[in-house]
Amino acid sequence: MDETLDKPVAASGFRSGLASVAADVETALDRLLPRPTGHHAVLAEAMRYAALGGGKRLRPFLVIETARMLGGDADNALTVGCALECLHVYSLVHDDLPCMDDDDLRRGKPTVHKVYGDAMAVLAGDGLLTHAFELLATDAAHPDPAVRARLVLELARAGGASGMIGGQVVDITVAEAARDTALITQLQAMKTGALIRFAMKAGALIADAQPQDIAALDRYADALGLAFQIQDDVLDVEGDMETVGKAVGKDADLGKATFVSLLGLDGAKDKARSLGETARAALAPYGEKAQTLLGTVDFVLERRH
Amino acid sequence: MDETLDKPVAASGFRSGLASVAADVETALDRLLPRPTGHHAVLAEAMRYAALGGGKRLRPFLVIETARMLGGDADNALTVGCALECLHVYSLVHDDLPCMDDDDLRRGKPTVHKVYGDAMAVLAGDGLLTHAFELLATDAAHPDPAVRARLVLELARAGGASGMIGGQVVDITVAEAARDTALITQLQAMKTGALIRFAMKAGALIADAQPQDIAALDRYADALGLAFQIQDDVLDVEGDMETVGKAVGKDADLGKATFVSLLGLDGAKDKARSLGETARAALAPYGEKAQTLLGTVDFVLERRH
Repeated sequence: MDETLDKPVAASGFRSGLASVAADVETALDRLLPRPTGHHAVLAEAMRYAALGGGKRLRPFLVIETARMLGGDADNALTVGCALECLHVYSLVHDDLPCMDDDDLRRGKPTVHKVYGDAMAVLAGDGLLTHAFELLATDAAHPDPAVRARLVLELARAGGASGMIGGQVVDITVAEAARDTALITQLQAMKTGALIRFAMKAGALIADAQPQDIAALDRYADALGLAFQIQDDVLDVEGDMETVGKAVGKDADLGKATFVSLLGLDGAKDKARSLGETARAALAPYGEKAQTLLGTVDFVLERRH
Repeated sequence: MDETLDKPVAASGFRSGLASVAADVETALDRLLPRPTGHHAVLAEAMRYAALGGGKRLRPFLVIETARMLGGDADNALTVGCALECLHVYSLVHDDLPCMDDDDLRRGKPTVHKVYGDAMAVLAGDGLLTHAFELLATDAAHPDPAVRARLVLELARAGGASGMIGGQVVDITVAEAARDTALITQLQAMKTGALIRFAMKAGALIADAQPQDIAALDRYADALGLAFQIQDDVLDVEGDMETVGKAVGKDADLGKATFVSLLGLDGAKDKARSLGETARAALAPYGEKAQTLLGTVDFVLERRH
């Protein structure tokens, strides 16, 4: 394919674009998160510890780049991206708890409960989840209250019992032996895919996009989200402690059913590449405007951590 | 006072009214909560176990009666009341966790984590919190999206880091010895008062009320919420296991600073009565229409569990 020739340059441009958006998100989160004050100052400190200073910010990036592609307001997209990131971070804080995945490291630093204790980690997570909806309900998310209400509805569905939380429940309750490719595909569509899908839909809603835009972006999001998860499984096998920044090979050590254990390493890579093609095809109608979102597909497939 | 004469009748009428609304809330919650389905069915079961089959439903009652007093739509108020109850119930589920208050009983039955385990209790709480915002964002909460967005904003603030969660943080982090009346008043205004205040404001927003209505209802809510908490402390000393349905005298056993320990039993009762007068005075402009909310003051001061 012709694109292969200029991929290194495009990828480099993409990575600096992603880093630039991540810096914007960091600054905006610092501004939008509660400041430590009063007798409950430690709560805001724990929320900030969890949300600031790390992360690729891929979800806000997708909100922002989708809104940009469709002509939406950049400030609105940044606010909505921060709301989505708050929700994503809360899920990490709760998933890391001793009664859940019991992880000591996240993004290369001690998890919230290791630093602030279990009770504060529960409450900081609750605070970040609540703050996500607060941000979506402010004028800064969108001047039209109908869009704000819709964003709240969509995020609650994506992050709720039939979406992300439901996916986590499947993940912690269904025995590894009972998992086949269909089940882990469904699990990941709920646990990871729902927020990716929300990111694209949010960008489209901010830009007052048409239903056919939302349908195309849903196809892109579903393929990208699953490719992302498969690549996670691939990295879990291929990665090493230094570049990933969390315990590697953990899934395999636990005899966990992953896309790699079910499809084999090559099978998983093929599946991810095929999903990448599906994602790219969904963006065909947008031509040049879709350049960044096309770059996101390459980034997801080629990332090393 | 003249009201004293017919108080037994009024109180009886109030209690049947409260029970009737509680039954409506129970039916509506059963309809509005997710149904157990798929591999994550246990999540919806745990959410339903937590939310159904108990509770006075005082918060939804306040939404519904405030909306009724001001001419708001009853179905809207019921939906918003259910959203508020979901948020209240999530806070109970998380507060009961072993890493927080470590309670085994709630509303006379085993707590969610005792039945479903700690991880599912965290997730069921997360699900209920998320569902609260989903309900507020649906048409059933209000036909005007501007009102829906405002309801989301107000609930997020009331339930967030500067409201309920912040109050819980103060409660679990500030040493008993460091607590004076001013601190526990502030703590309760955040932990309990913020949701009571939201209940009244939500009823007013549903009814498209004026700013002076909201100001009057704020005064009522602040006084009622504090009186409710003081009465809780009084009941903790005076109650017995059978009528309260949870461990009694626990606060005193732990050497906990309460309104009773700080003001004495009589002092606490006087304070509650005085707050009752403040709450009643705030409703003076509404005359006969305020009968039920006036009855709520009597109910809060006279309740035995």
